[in-house]
Formats: sequence, C-alpha cells, structure tokens
Amino acid sequence: MNRADLQVDGDGRLRHFLTVEGLHRDLLVEILDTAESFLGVVEQSVKKVPLLRGKTIVNLFFEASTRTRTTFELAAKRLSADVLNIHVDASATIKGETLLDTLRNLEAMHCDMFVVRHADSGTAHFFAQHAAPHVSVINAGDGRHAHPTQALLDMLTIRRHKGDFGRLRVVIVGDILHSRVARSQIHALNILGAGEVRVVAPRTLLPVQAHTLGVHVFHDLEAGIRDADVIIMLRLQRERMRGALLPSAHEYFRLYGLTAQRLGLAHPDAIVMHPGPINRGVEMDSQVADGAHSVILEQVHYGIAVRMAVMSLAMRRRLPGAEVREQEAG
Amino acid sequence: MNRADLQVDGDGRLRHFLTVEGLHRDLLVEILDTAESFLGVVEQSVKKVPLLRGKTIVNLFFEASTRTRTTFELAAKRLSADVLNIHVDASATIKGETLLDTLRNLEAMHCDMFVVRHADSGTAHFFAQHAAPHVSVINAGDGRHAHPTQALLDMLTIRRHKGDFGRLRVVIVGDILHSRVARSQIHALNILGAGEVRVVAPRTLLPVQAHTLGVHVFHDLEAGIRDADVIIMLRLQRERMRGALLPSAHEYFRLYGLTAQRLGLAHPDAIVMHPGPINRGVEMDSQVADGAHSVILEQVHYGIAVRMAVMSLAMRRRLPGAEVREQEAG
Amino acid sequence: MNRADLQVDGDGRLRHFLTVEGLHRDLLVEILDTAESFLGVVEQSVKKVPLLRGKTIVNLFFEASTRTRTTFELAAKRLSADVLNIHVDASATIKGETLLDTLRNLEAMHCDMFVVRHADSGTAHFFAQHAAPHVSVINAGDGRHAHPTQALLDMLTIRRHKGDFGRLRVVIVGDILHSRVARSQIHALNILGAGEVRVVAPRTLLPVQAHTLGVHVFHDLEAGIRDADVIIMLRLQRERMRGALLPSAHEYFRLYGLTAQRLGLAHPDAIVMHPGPINRGVEMDSQVADGAHSVILEQVHYGIAVRMAVMSLAMRRRLPGAEVREQEAG
Repeated sequence: MNRADLQVDGDGRLRHFLTVEGLHRDLLVEILDTAESFLGVVEQSVKKVPLLRGKTIVNLFFEASTRTRTTFELAAKRLSADVLNIHVDASATIKGETLLDTLRNLEAMHCDMFVVRHADSGTAHFFAQHAAPHVSVINAGDGRHAHPTQALLDMLTIRRHKGDFGRLRVVIVGDILHSRVARSQIHALNILGAGEVRVVAPRTLLPVQAHTLGVHVFHDLEAGIRDADVIIMLRLQRERMRGALLPSAHEYFRLYGLTAQRLGLAHPDAIVMHPGPINRGVEMDSQVADGAHSVILEQVHYGIAVRMAVMSLAMRRRLPGAEVREQEAG
Repeated sequence: MNRADLQVDGDGRLRHFLTVEGLHRDLLVEILDTAESFLGVVEQSVKKVPLLRGKTIVNLFFEASTRTRTTFELAAKRLSADVLNIHVDASATIKGETLLDTLRNLEAMHCDMFVVRHADSGTAHFFAQHAAPHVSVINAGDGRHAHPTQALLDMLTIRRHKGDFGRLRVVIVGDILHSRVARSQIHALNILGAGEVRVVAPRTLLPVQAHTLGVHVFHDLEAGIRDADVIIMLRLQRERMRGALLPSAHEYFRLYGLTAQRLGLAHPDAIVMHPGPINRGVEMDSQVADGAHSVILEQVHYGIAVRMAVMSLAMRRRLPGAEVREQEAG
Repeated sequence: MNRADLQVDGDGRLRHFLTVEGLHRDLLVEILDTAESFLGVVEQSVKKVPLLRGKTIVNLFFEASTRTRTTFELAAKRLSADVLNIHVDASATIKGETLLDTLRNLEAMHCDMFVVRHADSGTAHFFAQHAAPHVSVINAGDGRHAHPTQALLDMLTIRRHKGDFGRLRVVIVGDILHSRVARSQIHALNILGAGEVRVVAPRTLLPVQAHTLGVHVFHDLEAGIRDADVIIMLRLQRERMRGALLPSAHEYFRLYGLTAQRLGLAHPDAIVMHPGPINRGVEMDSQVADGAHSVILEQVHYGIAVRMAVMSLAMRRRLPGAEVREQEAG
C-alpha cells in the first residue's frame, strides 16, 4: 500500500494526513474549502466550534518546535478537543520504549489523533501504518520528507490572493535540498495545476535530480523571480550557514536574499511568502518582510484554519452524523 | 494516625490514596467497581463526564514521568477537571521553597487535588498529613514505597480476566527489592484474597525479609511460574543492569526473562502483565509481549478508568449530592 | 505616549496592564473591587465563570517562573479561557526570531491576551506598544521595572485587613534596589494614599535617589518597623547572598531578618507580607512566617482573584454586552 492509499479510506476520504504526494486534487480542494469555512470562527466572540468535543488529540513531538506545536494546539482547542502535549526526548524514549510501544500505549488510553513531529523521515507514516482503525495521524514534519499542513496553508494563502492556480508562476527560493516544506509545496502546486513552478537555489542546496520534480531550475535569483506571481522564500537553517554548503549568511543574502530592488523584477502584484520564522537580512531584508507584498502573517492565520480542517476531516468518519459542515452548523 | 486512617474519613470513605497497605477490602472493591463503570466513557463519542467540572487537579511531579503524568492528565480531563502540570525541578525547589510551602501555596490557590510523584518514599503521605480539609492527595509513585493506582489497575485487569481472586496463583517476577509497584501489588493481592502470591527474583533483588510479606519466594523462574494463572513481570530499571546487583541485562534475560517456552509451564490460560514500558529482550521477548497471553495494553486502558475512579471517589465528599453514581447518571 | 496612556483607552478603561505607575486611583480601586467580586468563585462547587470562554490567553514566559505562570494559568482557566503556555527559551528565540515577529505571529493566530514575563525591563511595554487593537498585554514581571499584579494583590490584602489606606504606616524591607515588586508596591501605595511608606534596606540595596520615590528611608530595621501597620518583606534573590552587595545570608538575617522580637516593635495588629517563596531564616524566621500576624497565604489566594480581575477588565471592551458584572451574573 503506498502512502496515498494509506491516507484515504475506500471512499477517498481523509484518514491520515502524511504527505501531499499522491493525493487527489479534489481532496486538496476539499481541505482548502473546509479551512475557508473555519476562517470565520476566529472572528466570533467565542472562538470555538464543538466539533471535536471529548476527543483527545496528542501532540507527539520528538523534535522541539514551539511554533508548530502551538498552531496545532490552538487548532485542536478551537475544535473543542482535549489536547495532550508530549515531548518525547526526556521520557519514554530514554526509557527505551520503541516507537510502536509508544503508539500502542497511547492508543490504549483511547487517544484519537496523533500529531507527530520527528527528525527522521517516515515516522508519521510508520505510525499511520500501525495505527488502530479508530486513530488518525497527522504529519507535523518528518525529517526532510514532508510538512504537508505547511504546504496546504501556503496553497490557501495563494488561492485567496490569486484565485485560479492555472495561470500562476510560482518561485521557491532557497535550500530546496534539505526542505520538507519545499518538497510538500512542489507536490501541492503540481496537483493543483500551477502554471509554472520554479526553484532557485545554489547547486549545493539542490537535489541532484531537481528537474524530475516537475520544476524549472534556476541558480540565479534575478532570472528566477522574473515575472513571478508568487515568491516563496524558504527558511535557511542556521547549521547551513556555518556548514560547508554555503560560504556565509552574508554571502547567501548577497546572492539569494530578497530585496525591494529584486522584488521589482517580479509581477507588480506578486506576493512574498515565508514559512517563518524569518532570518531578517538572510532570506530577505525587513523592507520586504514587512512590505506591501508580504503575506507572511496571513500564512500564520490560515495555518490555524488549515489545521482545523485537516483535523476535523480526518475525524469525520468517526463523528456521529458524519458531515463536518452539518456538525459545525449545529 | 497510621496511613490507612489518613486515607479514609470516619465513614470509611476514600479521602487520600497513598498506599494499598491497610485499606479495607470493601474499599478496594468499590474502586474497582467504580473504575468498571467508567470503562464505557471512552466508547462514547464525547469521552467525558462532567463529574469534576470546575475542580482544579495539579500534577505535582518532582520526578519526570511523562507516561504516568499523561494517564492522570487524561483521567482528569475525562472527568472535566482543569489540570495543571507542575514539574518542580526547575522552579520552586531551586528557589529553596520547602515542600510544605509548596503545598500551602497551591492550597491557597484553591487547588482541589494533588497527584504527587517523588523519588523519596513518604512524600505523598507527608502532603496528605498536612493537607487542608478540602484537599485530596493521590500518590503517583513515591520512592520505593508505593504506586497504588498501578497496583489497582493490575487488580482490575486480573479481575476482568479471572474473576474471583480466591483460586488464583499470581507470580511477580523481577526486582522486588526496589519496586514500589511490587510492594503495592502484594498488598492488594493479599487484601483481595488471592489464593497464592509468589515472587521470583535473584537474591540480590529481594528484600531480606521477603517471606514476611505474605508471599512464597522462588529464585528459579521455571519453578516459580509453574501452574501460574497470572504472571506479572516487573520492569528492570536501567541502572540495575549496569550496577553491582546484576551481571548484565543479557544474563538477566537468560535467567529471568519470559519466553514462550517458559510461559508453557504456566496454566494454559495464564495472562502476562507488565507495568510498562517493556525492555524487550530483558524482561520478556517480543513473542510473549505481543502474544495471545499478554494483557499489557489492557492494563493501560484500565489505568485511565482506575485513575478516574480514585479521583472521583476521593472528591465525592466535596461534590454536591454526594454519590458518584448519581452524578455520573445525571 | 507615556505608559499610563498606553494602558487605558479614551474612556479611562483598562486595555493593557504594564505598570502601576501613573494609573488613576479610580482604576486601581475598580481592579480591587472586581477582584473582591471574584473571591466567591473559588467557594463554588464549579470554580469557574464563563466570562472569557473561547478567548485565547498566552503565557509568554521568557524567564522561567512556575509559580507566577501557575497563578495566571489558574486565573485564565477559572475565567473559562483557553490557555497556551509558551516558554521561549528553547524555541523561537534560539531560531533568531525577533520579539516583534513573535508578537505578530501570535496575533496572526488570533490570540487575545499575552501575559509576558521577561528578564529585561520594558518588554511588556514594548509588546503593548506594538500590539494589534484587539490584543491586551499583561506584565507578569519585567526586569527590575514592574510586577503590577503582585503589587495589586498586596493592596487587596492590605485593604481587606486594614480598610482605609489613609491612616496606614507601611514598611517595605529588603532589596529595594533590584525589586520590581517594591517599585510597583510603592507606586500603588502612593496612588491609594497610604499614610506613610517606609523602606528599610542596607545602603547597597537601595536606589541612589530612594527618597524621590515618596518614601521614608531607613537603614535600621528596628527603627523602620516601629509602629508599622503593614510589614512587607521582600524576597532576597539567591545571587545577592553570594554577591558583593551582601556579606552573607546569615549576616542579612542578623540585620534585616524579621523575628518575633522585632515584630513586637510594630503595631500590635500589624500584618506581615511576603511575595513568596520565602527563604526561611533569611528574610524572616519560621515563627513569623507561620505566625498569627502572617497573611502570606492570603496574598496567594487574592493573587488569583486580582489576576482574574485584570484579565477580565482588560478584555471587557471586547466582550459582547460590555459590563463584566453583567457577564458574571449571567
């Protein structure tokens, strides 16, 4: 069974959310539509819907990420679920428990959903493969493999600004080689039918077979962002700045940093995105980060709604009455 | 006042839960019965009962244990209580606050229940001795002394599989000397009238006066498990494997590890238990851990229900209308 | 715009709570009155009011303080808000995110209130200055600058014991120089019209211009506490005991520690206060800490109510129907 099969049930409905790769276009659109329906929740005085009341959602983080954990915790609480934060470093793993034993134990406590973050690629997939029928697994980032909710919040941001994907020229700039975010974005853009997807990176930060991903490869930023509608700047991990792959953060900015001048080469209505947190003066200068083209904070806002959508759709088959929309209206 | 007196009020009703030792059989049975009544809660779509709504339960952990903390946190949330997790290492204790000051301060914040875990024997008892009248203390493990909720979830597991305790031959295998779990299990089994309780351990991991605990002592595993109905394997702490008391983990498994072959010496319907997390290949091999006789994951499931039972019974005297069952039905 | 202006809206209503300095007497009295109205909540069986249901309150702690975090978390939960605990050390700051980016991100997640603790003076003020219109900021201690909720819980304690402030002689003893608590207390006492405010400290632990704070300065404890109605003992930070400013903790106690004998110099009905946790045998001996004059645990009790008051008043302008009292009655 491949990963896409694992993610949906016989009727094509979401069960786990591990990777964007191989998912049907209709399912991505359903997630985006559901997320849009949740955008209004945060405008209410009581920012909650009772959809997942009495459900237990576990943030199972084998890798620290306050930021990502926070977005999932907020999404779960706004769906009225009970949330359990488990950071695994200091406990069971030290005691020598296997991943599978951790899963089985939390299942035995009748937890309903696991939001899994791990430095190793494939961990969320492993959990999904072995999960009991009543359990859903959401990938919150696994190694270099995938970060699918991040990719979908990016798609929602693009769709709300640009509408149809078909005519868009989207450019992803930065460390494509090590980025699970880039990998998930490229899959999502291709599935949603983006007109052209480009990647811009130094040779040392590109996968060897980059062109097989369905993208146009550029090594020069100014060539790459010409006439772009959407510019996605990837976060440069600190370790890359010190490593053998790049001379220095300063040099990176000189070659690949987004400035107002370079942004002028893109389409006049181009939007600038970044998964955060920004290294100001590395990936872009503050003038761009805080400028009129930046939609970076909207990404964060949409991130909560997308996570609410993924969580509620994955649990839908277990809710009485079935349809998310009906529940929400109730 | 001895510990049993401290644990119950004038009518014999649970107030604190510190140790199984000295408790009346009827009280243990009441806890087990109440726990059984909670087993259905997790099968509901909304896995909660409003019994402890508006109550504040503090997980006061002076010793890290994500696993135990998680079970109490889940139990409290399924009773609709507000839960506060306090890990004391990094805060008040460093600032030099005494245990008693910690207790008094949390009482002044009108917390209702303290779930206490500490590396020193007697800590939960100390809290109970000094607690204000409205406060309940639950022992979540204190040094080598007791881990009473673990023992009771084991009793519930045994009762659901075997019914009456009177005809049972129960064997506890492993590090009896350092195990608060074993101590609490032996008390519970004796109070509930188990037919025969055996312990199997090397001489270095047995208390000097082991026979005074009301158990039959074996040093040979194969002799000890013969015709057993229930086999409880204790967890071997990592430090023992490296210490002077045991030659090595490998050697321990050779002498005391449970294998399918050895399990064949027990009663054909024997159940195998373990408090978790298992050291696979040390206390038992995976064939046994995941085999048909293993009820290890059921123990985890029952653990939530037992903790819900203990929490709600200890708070019963403070609930309007008094009877837990009435509340639950309401 | 000065800090007082930042804290209130055009109608003089609380928006942020950063410092006591410059606030109008009526506003302090309103907070104290509102806090008194919450004292009864903890006596109820269900210790909650639905005032802030569906609101998201973030404890944003850049400095560890389990104690203070706990009081704010409890206050928020008793107002039925969703609480997010973020300790910033280990995450975003390490990743190089600026304070402003942290604020903007959490705002984009539609968090409503930030309870900010930071080792640097002015951090909460910085957040308030840049906060979106819908967001409130509460200062939970910033450097040496202010700890306004602590000061107000002290005022509530004094008012409930002594009534009118006009005739009171209040003495603050200890490390005035480094204490944000002392600074906030002095402002509050002056605004509320305390008859006389004295500070007692060695010269090394006094600000150079101490007399400009509107206090009488004493270097001798016995002279300073004579006829006092209220004695506030400050906590001596551990680092001071080892530092160049004090010979030793023992010597400090000899000169500035409160004993029953010295307490005899104060008014016979004097109350003794301390922000906690007490260093027994340093700021005072246990006979005083646990004696009839001590109101230290009442301070903790009032602390929850004061934080509930500040939180609900700061959010009042965003609640439907507006008046806190009406909500509470509903």
